[in-house]
Amino acid sequence: MVAEAFPSDSASDPYAGDPVFDLHVGGKIEVTSAVHVTNADELSMAYTPGVARVCTAIAENPSLVRKYTWKSNVVAVVTDGTAVLGLGDIGPAASLPVMEGKALLFKEFGGVDSVPIALDCTDVDEFVETVVRLAPTFGGINLEDISAPRCFEIERKLKERLDIPVFHDDQHGTAVVVLAALRNALRLTDKSIEDIRVVISGAGAAGVACARILLQAGVGDLAVVDSKGVLSEDRADLNPVKLSLAKDTNTGGLSGRLVDALDGADVFLGVSGGTVPEEAVARMAPGAMIFALANPNPEVHPDIAHRHAAVVATGRSDFPNQINNVLAFPGIFRGAFDVNASRITEGMKLAAAEALAALISDDDLRPDYVIPSPFDPRVAPAVAAAVADAARQDGVARG
Amino acid sequence: MVAEAFPSDSASDPYAGDPVFDLHVGGKIEVTSAVHVTNADELSMAYTPGVARVCTAIAENPSLVRKYTWKSNVVAVVTDGTAVLGLGDIGPAASLPVMEGKALLFKEFGGVDSVPIALDCTDVDEFVETVVRLAPTFGGINLEDISAPRCFEIERKLKERLDIPVFHDDQHGTAVVVLAALRNALRLTDKSIEDIRVVISGAGAAGVACARILLQAGVGDLAVVDSKGVLSEDRADLNPVKLSLAKDTNTGGLSGRLVDALDGADVFLGVSGGTVPEEAVARMAPGAMIFALANPNPEVHPDIAHRHAAVVATGRSDFPNQINNVLAFPGIFRGAFDVNASRITEGMKLAAAEALAALISDDDLRPDYVIPSPFDPRVAPAVAAAVADAARQDGVARG
Repeated sequence: MVAEAFPSDSASDPYAGDPVFDLHVGGKIEVTSAVHVTNADELSMAYTPGVARVCTAIAENPSLVRKYTWKSNVVAVVTDGTAVLGLGDIGPAASLPVMEGKALLFKEFGGVDSVPIALDCTDVDEFVETVVRLAPTFGGINLEDISAPRCFEIERKLKERLDIPVFHDDQHGTAVVVLAALRNALRLTDKSIEDIRVVISGAGAAGVACARILLQAGVGDLAVVDSKGVLSEDRADLNPVKLSLAKDTNTGGLSGRLVDALDGADVFLGVSGGTVPEEAVARMAPGAMIFALANPNPEVHPDIAHRHAAVVATGRSDFPNQINNVLAFPGIFRGAFDVNASRITEGMKLAAAEALAALISDDDLRPDYVIPSPFDPRVAPAVAAAVADAARQDGVARG
Repeated sequence: MVAEAFPSDSASDPYAGDPVFDLHVGGKIEVTSAVHVTNADELSMAYTPGVARVCTAIAENPSLVRKYTWKSNVVAVVTDGTAVLGLGDIGPAASLPVMEGKALLFKEFGGVDSVPIALDCTDVDEFVETVVRLAPTFGGINLEDISAPRCFEIERKLKERLDIPVFHDDQHGTAVVVLAALRNALRLTDKSIEDIRVVISGAGAAGVACARILLQAGVGDLAVVDSKGVLSEDRADLNPVKLSLAKDTNTGGLSGRLVDALDGADVFLGVSGGTVPEEAVARMAPGAMIFALANPNPEVHPDIAHRHAAVVATGRSDFPNQINNVLAFPGIFRGAFDVNASRITEGMKLAAAEALAALISDDDLRPDYVIPSPFDPRVAPAVAAAVADAARQDGVARG
């Protein structure tokens, strides 16, 4: 193997020597050979002429592609770079470090191969068409960092057209981990999911998906707030996704701003950034739960949140109870792939959340430990097993 | 890492136990982490929040994508499955074992990462548009197993639209290795490239590219033969690519079939299959060179070819002088990547051929050793160095 040369302009690179940048030099992933080719016999088996027999077999029996190629274990991590982390629309090339990071985590935590695909294409239908054309190569599609509300339409259309799992992690990965943490917070506070009132700040990808999974899980009273206030059917400025959510939420008929909605609420879930004033947090119900997930600045700083809440979670690794998608997506795809699932159902997502929550025993459960660590080795296997079982129950497992 | 599960239907799989198929189980490549994430600090550097700084830096200075992601070392191996090996149009999924094999060889021989992309899309413009949309993710595009004449138009359009190397290996990889072997065969037979008469059987991807590189290299008299006979301007049945080739070749004004064209020819290059009768081979010039590259059945069996030719080459690994593309493509992309080349020029291909030929010294040169073995460790570095030099000379190196 020939060594890769790197650009020789390090002397003039202002980032050289920065540990984060140094770690990124040359990228964070590579494609390696699962089979080594060191002589003519091995070459003739892995490549021509031997490989022709494998191609012929797949052409005659398409299901063999799953066994005799890497397709059954490889996810495309697809973005258009329009909503990268908190950075916004920075375009496909600048999004690549995130996509490589995702690929790295898929492998390290789930044993799933994945390939960053950053598309220079922001039209919804062109994006969908491009991914459909790519699909023969991949066993699943993980959508990533695509702006709302475009991401909802893209995911819906791809799910209609493809018979492999399509999963927008910014939506569903977040939703699964939030539900898991909420389940355990409820165990601690002796509250029932049907009885709590939840306020979600943010109606983008994560906010919408969290609202949907919480409704599925039985939350009875839930209000979603965007920058203009509580989503309600009488607002004329809502896009179709928000309008649909308004119809399914806010049974209490709230109006006004976030601070109004928080009055007496049991749960605050922040997935939008901004800062919530302490006075508003102080008016939440006793035994409140505050999940302030904005990065790097939580909507409510944990020091403040702890004055008023029984359970506090953030998106940061330097505070307890980190809501981190890596707790979900590697195990979810691992489980889906293990049973050759044709899609990711609501049941599979709920099962992932339950499995994640159940990893913390009653003895271990504490206000600062409602969600496992990303480095808990039980996480991905437990999520995978639960997702595979749910896929079988939901009739989407194919083997 | 969680182990991948494989389908449990091996008992009913007629291919189980076949060594070629067993080697393919689970695929031949995987994506691995170049960076390991074992604690929260590492996670926060490789993924959020640290990665956001790298994204921001690339958004501000797009050239940094080359240093801080894997883009500068990764090739997309793109096909539509329309001309897979000798199997024809078997579609994208069935082509995957070949694309994985190519990716394996890119890594093993050139240290180049590559990703199979088998597109469900056979319209030329849609194919081109799809690859253009994918391009931000990749440092180069290796086109593979695309039917002629579509492959010519696809390559031309992609080269116009992209500023990264685009290389159709079935054309140019073959052409480079053929030219290298011919150079050495000429050294052995004391013939001059300007004086020889070459007959190419086959006007598909490989035939057209071989004709073009041989003209570039100085062959004066060259005729290309397709299934209907010698390409000549007066034929009314030629597609534009063949017509253009007819104009640039056949200065002798030949007509008729392959057997007629071979009368007195110095070189036969077979890239089309079929069988050439021994009588025709016997009428070639003294010191003839026969390159019968069809796999698995050479157009002229080496045992027959040796009765009439001074140098014999095939595409098979079990005979001497194997014309194998793996001698070219890993080193060509390695060299192009090492200097961040914007394209693969004619000069870079010619330089690759010269470097490959020059690896065999006068002392070592023999009729059964005109081309190095694919396992000669000098090959990829020599090709890469020559290609990088040529890129600089041609003004397409960017760093």
